[in-house]
Amino acid sequence: MNADVKVLDSQQLLIHWQGHRNLTRRVIEAFPEKDLFEFSIGGMRPFAKLALELLAIGGPALKSIVEGTINEFDESFNPTTKAEILAKWDEETETINEYFSQISEERFQEMFNLFGQYEFPIYQNILYFVDNEIHHRGQGYVYLRALGIEPPFFWERQR
Amino acid sequence: MNADVKVLDSQQLLIHWQGHRNLTRRVIEAFPEKDLFEFSIGGMRPFAKLALELLAIGGPALKSIVEGTINEFDESFNPTTKAEILAKWDEETETINEYFSQISEERFQEMFNLFGQYEFPIYQNILYFVDNEIHHRGQGYVYLRALGIEPPFFWERQR
Repeated sequence: MNADVKVLDSQQLLIHWQGHRNLTRRVIEAFPEKDLFEFSIGGMRPFAKLALELLAIGGPALKSIVEGTINEFDESFNPTTKAEILAKWDEETETINEYFSQISEERFQEMFNLFGQYEFPIYQNILYFVDNEIHHRGQGYVYLRALGIEPPFFWERQR
Repeated sequence: MNADVKVLDSQQLLIHWQGHRNLTRRVIEAFPEKDLFEFSIGGMRPFAKLALELLAIGGPALKSIVEGTINEFDESFNPTTKAEILAKWDEETETINEYFSQISEERFQEMFNLFGQYEFPIYQNILYFVDNEIHHRGQGYVYLRALGIEPPFFWERQR
């Protein structure tokens, strides 16, 4: 038995997620202001709405996991400019770093009833946050291409 | 020190990936035959081409990691029907199960030069396969919506 044997540790998962969040931030930036809030294909939400969903998940979910509280999913934050979204994005980057580091590795296999609705092991909840972000950002790439804008490279995750 | 402390184990990562692959398979199925090969937005590849990229990565990459060989990235498989893609998809499901289970957990932190081009720790390479699949499938969701077709639920991963 060797405690060093692991697929990845929690710090590596945090870095992985923040790399994705950095890319998503650059996708938000790439949208013209008006299109960020209005452009849509096939009746889907504009990219601002998708970004707000992501903001309503990451930080609040981690805070809830660390504090052991059941908070309802809250999408009431309703900014009207790209700058407000980006400022909130950066604020949540710090929130995520702060709370993620407080989840001990022992807890990742524990069940947690996120937002009082999604009862899964914590590692599955966190993978879901990352997957959901990649999924919505993939939609954002199509919106950008449809607008004639080159999106950032998918594999570039660092600032 | 406790060897049971882990974010997730390799079997959980395999199940996670195969859950995503199951969803991607249903997205392929949801496309009308002609649109699978031809429909595109903003000059992006049709969904068949994206699915073929995924098929060229998963199984061949794992085989290469297990056998320690450097194979070039090979996208020469060129099917013309949805049925051929789905048959190959199912074949690769088995290939992935077979080879993934042969990567011992000790190896996930080792570096591997995938396709002679992408030198990263094995856990990062494998997360990239999953992320890349979610990313392209997110594009597929927009294509389906633009075609007036309801995609499968993102959170449903089982058969």
